[in-house]
Amino acid sequence: ADRFDILLLPGDGIGPEVIGAARRVLDAAADHFGFELACDERLVGAAAIRAEGAPVSEETIQAAKSSDAILFGAVGDPEFDGGDVRPEAGLLALRKALDTFANLRPVAAIPALLDASPLKREIVEGVDVLIVRELTGGSYFGEKVEAFDYSSDLSVYTKEEVVRVARVAFEAAGRRKGRLTSVDKANVMATGRLWRKVVNEVAEEYPDVELDHVLADAAAMHLIQNPRRFDVIVTDNLFGDMLSDEASVLPGSMGMLPSASLGAPGTPGLFEPVHGSAPDIAGKGVANPYAAILTAAMMFRHGLDRPDVSDALERAVSTATEAGFLTRDLGGDKNTEEVTQAV
Amino acid sequence: ADRFDILLLPGDGIGPEVIGAARRVLDAAADHFGFELACDERLVGAAAIRAEGAPVSEETIQAAKSSDAILFGAVGDPEFDGGDVRPEAGLLALRKALDTFANLRPVAAIPALLDASPLKREIVEGVDVLIVRELTGGSYFGEKVEAFDYSSDLSVYTKEEVVRVARVAFEAAGRRKGRLTSVDKANVMATGRLWRKVVNEVAEEYPDVELDHVLADAAAMHLIQNPRRFDVIVTDNLFGDMLSDEASVLPGSMGMLPSASLGAPGTPGLFEPVHGSAPDIAGKGVANPYAAILTAAMMFRHGLDRPDVSDALERAVSTATEAGFLTRDLGGDKNTEEVTQAV
Ligand SMILES: CC(C)[C@H](C(=O)O)[C@@H](O)C(=O)O
Ligand SMILES: CC(C)[C@H](C(=O)O)[C@@H](O)C(=O)O
Repeated sequence: ADRFDILLLPGDGIGPEVIGAARRVLDAAADHFGFELACDERLVGAAAIRAEGAPVSEETIQAAKSSDAILFGAVGDPEFDGGDVRPEAGLLALRKALDTFANLRPVAAIPALLDASPLKREIVEGVDVLIVRELTGGSYFGEKVEAFDYSSDLSVYTKEEVVRVARVAFEAAGRRKGRLTSVDKANVMATGRLWRKVVNEVAEEYPDVELDHVLADAAAMHLIQNPRRFDVIVTDNLFGDMLSDEASVLPGSMGMLPSASLGAPGTPGLFEPVHGSAPDIAGKGVANPYAAILTAAMMFRHGLDRPDVSDALERAVSTATEAGFLTRDLGGDKNTEEVTQAV
Repeated sequence: ADRFDILLLPGDGIGPEVIGAARRVLDAAADHFGFELACDERLVGAAAIRAEGAPVSEETIQAAKSSDAILFGAVGDPEFDGGDVRPEAGLLALRKALDTFANLRPVAAIPALLDASPLKREIVEGVDVLIVRELTGGSYFGEKVEAFDYSSDLSVYTKEEVVRVARVAFEAAGRRKGRLTSVDKANVMATGRLWRKVVNEVAEEYPDVELDHVLADAAAMHLIQNPRRFDVIVTDNLFGDMLSDEASVLPGSMGMLPSASLGAPGTPGLFEPVHGSAPDIAGKGVANPYAAILTAAMMFRHGLDRPDVSDALERAVSTATEAGFLTRDLGGDKNTEEVTQAV
């Protein structure tokens, strides 16, 4: 295609700054590649609570559904911590409405930035993991009870929910090093036993992918002790939340990490940098826009079927980082504007 | 007291070797301090499934209840992976029967072993964290459904369950650096919101302890990026499982980590090294017995009210490691026997 309808949802904190930066890069790419870009922009999160009374409005959900892809900034604001209306609910509602069941979070060591990692160089060098997190099931969306003196969360998985995310993970492993690690807690959880059984069944469709199973607690260890042991990891919503955040420390800064949340083929995906709203540095013009730009690259690859544009954006980011355009979180002194300009 | 009834449950894999080592050290301590030790020994885990048909028998549970403390090895055996009867069920049944709701897992960097850590020295130096994990509630023990094409796990917490484990954590923080971090997922889970509310209420009883709240995904990051930021962490059963295993990589080897599972005052605690059954090295005489010995030390401190014996055991371990008595996992070449002898 050469015309794309993109919904921009900058959200809170540094969201507007990094999505603004990504948009400038997108406009430059549109000029260069000669495609047309129609961007709509709406509120989400705390910004939407303030202006529209809810963390995501019905109209915004409709706009998301009829777009080709959604480029999302971040949600979250200390003002609403512990309140009844939470900015995060906007993101959860979008995930559910779009049925984006597969969340792809690639984490790779960046040679120029190895020293930023808390891990020893010999541990982190060459790390290249893709975490595929189930995103619309489990304890995030099961029935919740909040009574005066007890609460409960129900985690449910159907076979079909595990099948579809497992397929995404096997496909991805097939395009990468051909190794898939499925993470569950089958020794304790009923959903974990279903998870393992279904992943084993789906494995029969992918004889070329090597599959192993690791318990979630052991996975949390291996990810730090020997992260190179992993190629693709597939896991449920809650374990995926923790393990992907844990993995995000490997390269030394979350400021380089994109993510893609994908639904069924033909439906719009939601693309979002991993870093969150970072209220402490919001509005200062120092936020690292690389993750948002790499997120736009994921959007072209996985959402808009334009791997050529994706490649160009990723190359531009490599060139800029290698040329020393580094924000503070990467140990440099460049601001958002300078980095965006360089890309 | 000067007479202790101890139930030894060596279990599977390297369990019998390390509990055997701990027992020799206990006998030496009994001689030295002049207390009397009555040790009963029983089967648990895969060993119990083979001999008694269940991962823990009713008689063993009764013996545990009437002991002063339980010294536990490890459960788990690849033979039973994915089967219907699981060795782990023996441990879970004991935790529930003894109502050991507070699991204490201290993780500290050991100066002589800093280089074994996957983390940079400047990150891991001086780390000293105590994780207090709720151990008898949450998704481990809620109703489970296993149907043909779906499964579910229910996580329930009552106010009282949160109160009692929070008190243990506040007390521990008060005896340490006075800082407590409560970890939940209050932005998504109903149990997380109850957790946070109740911990805030209990905090009023402990005005001298400084409390903060961190989301579970963020905690998984901070634990690696900046582990010195933590003194005591309190969290639920499932998050505690993952975070304590994650934290166990900080010192470089799980082979030094003890744990204590405590119930109400006056009831027997269960004391267990963190490392697990390690079937790959079982029976070779090379297992690291330090964790089991440090676990015995925790038993004297938290279960038998003999901090003097505990101190002596901990000193003996420090002296032995500093003198270079290191097993293979610690980068040395000593075997179980040599290390035990040295202690
Ligand atoms: C903001 C929050 C609801 C969200 C989650 O827990 O899924 C975030 O942590 C993430 O990982 O995208
Ligand atoms: C063996 C298993 C059931 C157990 C758990 O998950 O609690 C173990 O991982 C632990 O942390 O003690």
